[in-house]
This record gives sequence, structure tokens and C-alpha cells, in this order.
Amino acid sequence: MNFNTVDICSTKITKASLETLSKNKIKWIRSLRQKKNRLAEGLFIIEGEKMVNEIISNSPEVVRCIISTEQPIIFNGETYITSHKEMSQISELQTPNRLLAVVEIPKIKSINSDFILALDGIQDPGNMGTILRTADWFGIKEIVCSKSTVDIYNPKVVQSSMGSIFRIPVKYVDLEEYLKTTNLPIYGALLEGDNIYKKTLKRKGILVLGNEGNGISNNIRNLINYPIHIPRFGSSESLNVAIATGIILSEFSR
Amino acid sequence: MNFNTVDICSTKITKASLETLSKNKIKWIRSLRQKKNRLAEGLFIIEGEKMVNEIISNSPEVVRCIISTEQPIIFNGETYITSHKEMSQISELQTPNRLLAVVEIPKIKSINSDFILALDGIQDPGNMGTILRTADWFGIKEIVCSKSTVDIYNPKVVQSSMGSIFRIPVKYVDLEEYLKTTNLPIYGALLEGDNIYKKTLKRKGILVLGNEGNGISNNIRNLINYPIHIPRFGSSESLNVAIATGIILSEFSR
Repeated sequence: MNFNTVDICSTKITKASLETLSKNKIKWIRSLRQKKNRLAEGLFIIEGEKMVNEIISNSPEVVRCIISTEQPIIFNGETYITSHKEMSQISELQTPNRLLAVVEIPKIKSINSDFILALDGIQDPGNMGTILRTADWFGIKEIVCSKSTVDIYNPKVVQSSMGSIFRIPVKYVDLEEYLKTTNLPIYGALLEGDNIYKKTLKRKGILVLGNEGNGISNNIRNLINYPIHIPRFGSSESLNVAIATGIILSEFSR
Repeated sequence: MNFNTVDICSTKITKASLETLSKNKIKWIRSLRQKKNRLAEGLFIIEGEKMVNEIISNSPEVVRCIISTEQPIIFNGETYITSHKEMSQISELQTPNRLLAVVEIPKIKSINSDFILALDGIQDPGNMGTILRTADWFGIKEIVCSKSTVDIYNPKVVQSSMGSIFRIPVKYVDLEEYLKTTNLPIYGALLEGDNIYKKTLKRKGILVLGNEGNGISNNIRNLINYPIHIPRFGSSESLNVAIATGIILSEFSR
């Protein structure tokens, strides 16, 4: 009896879902690739077995629906079984994973951390995700971003953050105003900054990293109390911004 | 008189090239996306105004041909003017640049460096390019890679290396054999390694970094004299391998 009930239920869900998924749902999920739609809906997409299973186990209440290419259905809410072909229409990954979830954007809790990472105009989603992952490794509890910084719920940021977007609160602010009102010391990665290896660095302050091509913008640059710089030993013109963030956070933590 | 000659020449080149480019040349350039074709031809692709202009200025003899979407022709060899549409068929970039070049793979000069970076199975081209760029920043003069490591002439590696592939010799070797025959100390980034901040590190030795998912392979792991590890202060499960490379090279250099 029990087996029958389970079978019937799962078939029902599957059939009903497949119908809906193939038109409106696919379009709706794909619409979440765009920031304005993510903001309007308060939702974003996560992909991959590991991240989806993590969110189902830890915070099932924020999961709006799951799309899977395989039985069994592992989630007790709205679930769709789909074909690999359809999944590749929905997915932003080159090799789509078997699991994808639509998840609520978390409300940001106000935190008063005394060691904050500030990002001024990071554009590349891969860099942004890697910065989140690295900041999470070094125990950063708060990130603030200028409005010109890439959206953290951009699918590529979500993917490369490896789950760290669920752990660090990220706020988008008027960075100039924010820095003008802080009492914390403001460090900034600048080419003309002091040799970071010769500074005594304490994990207290705001550390500003700038845009990939142009660095920290002029209005923010003027607010920096402690310009710092990673010395060059070879010939590269510059370091990737995520690498620079990693090295500087390591210096603050070591 | 001179002006006329120039005009005639440039028109000739343009017309002749356009004809050829539209079929065989496009196919041929696209074929260089694959490693086996790059090896067979001894050629690879570089994209972007900055890198192409750099190679034209510094080593015009290795440039086989240039594709540009705009006049004037800036190169004195085989040059094709093409449409934006055709360029987007040739280019691997999401937003194709106006310049692309087909370039000879450089012959690797044998160097006896005493601080060598060894890569064991790096897979992601973006990581590989960023590692090259970072190694170049820290003055690394030689990189050796296991045969399982992504090809450095992969277009995405070339792109993210920001020109560093032209500056550091990279060799693909049987990494186990290579490490067995060295007299240099062998450092390796391993989760169970010693706290890197507590070691006295000198820029002499071979530093091994492993694959994104699996780390250093077992046969290589056994050859490591000094396992090292970047301590974790937060919650990320791991650091991206390019970030780890940056932090470790910084520790060796500071």
C-alpha cells in the first residue's frame, strides 16, 4: 500500500511538473539570469548537486523549487523532473548538473564587524565569486560593495563562490558615503601604496579593493588612510584582483 | 606617388584576404582551438588589441597572420580585414576584440632555475592563466606541468595569462620522474601540511600545486619533502588553486 501511494504521488508530481516546466517555468527560471528580475522576484538560481543538497538540508524553507534530471525526488516541496535537453536550456553551466534550485535571496542581517572587505566596482563574476570564497576562508564577516559592483546573485558569482554567498552578508551601498561615516581605518590596494610586507597589519579596519581595469575610483581613493601595495618581483603588469585580495587578506591574518 | 602605392597595396591585401578568409582560413583558425591541431601546426591564437600589438612590436617574426575588423592595417605581414560577424565566428571571446593573431608556439629554452613552480593536473584554463600571471608577478622563471595539466596555448589560458605566457617557459613533463631526479627541496600545498606562516621559506626549491578537485596526486604526494598549508580562519571548504598559489608565492617572496 505504502509503495503504491509513493509511486502514485511521485508520478503525479512528475507529470504535472513536466507540463508546467516546459513553457512558463523554463521562461521564468531563465528570466532570473537578469538582475532586475532577480530583484523583482527576490529569487536567484543555484546549480550543482553539492550546493543544492546543502541548501535543502540546511535551509529548505528558502528553496522555492528544484529541477532535477533524475529520480528520486529528494526534496519535499515543488519539484520538477526534466530532460537533459531541457536542463541545458535552463542551466547557465557549460556542462549542466543534474540539480538546479530556485532560492530566495536572503535578508541581510546588520552586523557590526570590525574587519570589513569593501569592493569598488568588481565586474567579473568569476573574480567576485572567488573573492567571496577567499574572504570566507579568511573569516571575513561582512562585505560592502559599491553599486557598480557585479550582483552577487549573478549565476556565475553563485557558482564560483562555492557556497560562500550563503555565509557572508554582502551589502550594496553608496561606498563613498559609507566610508565617510566610518570610524574604522581604511586600507586600500593601490599601486603607489606602501609595501604590504613592511606594514604591521591588524585585523581591524575596512580593506578596499578596486575594479579589474581601473582600480579604486578617484572619489574613494581620497578616503583611504593606509594605501598598501604587494611588491612585484617579476614582469606582470598587474595581479588579478581576486589574487591580490587573497594575498592581502593572508597578510592581515598571518 | 607614395600615397598611391600605399593605397593600392592596402586595397589589394584587403580584397585578396577577404576572399580567402571567409572559408578555409576561418576553418583553419577555428581548428587551432583544439590542442592536437595547435601541436600539429605549432601555432596558437592570441586575441585583444593589447596582446596583439605587444607581439607585433616585440616579436613580429613569430606572427603568422593578423585578423582585424578595422583599418588601418598595423602589421607588415599577412593581414586580413574582416567583418564583426566573421570575427565573432573566429573569436573565442564573448565580446570579440578588433584584433586577433595566429602566432608560433615558442621553442622552450632550457633554464636552470632554482625556484620552480610545478603544476600537477590544473584543469581550469582561467586558473591556469591566472597562475601564470601571478607566477610572473613573483618573478618565477620556470614552470613544469604534469601531462594532465591543461595546455597553456588553450585560448582561455592565453587570455587570462595577460601576456605572461610569453615570459615564462612552461614545460610538460612526467612530473613523477622529474621530481625523482631533482636535488632541490620539494614543497607541496597539502591540507595536512605545516602552517605556512610558521615556516621559514627560502626561494629555493620546487613548489607543487595540485588539481582543483583532487589536489596533488598520490604518486607525487609521496615525493614532497615539505608539505605546507594556508591556515583557515573562516568557513570555506577550500581555496581556489590560483589564490593558494598567489598566497604561497607571496610567502616565499616577502
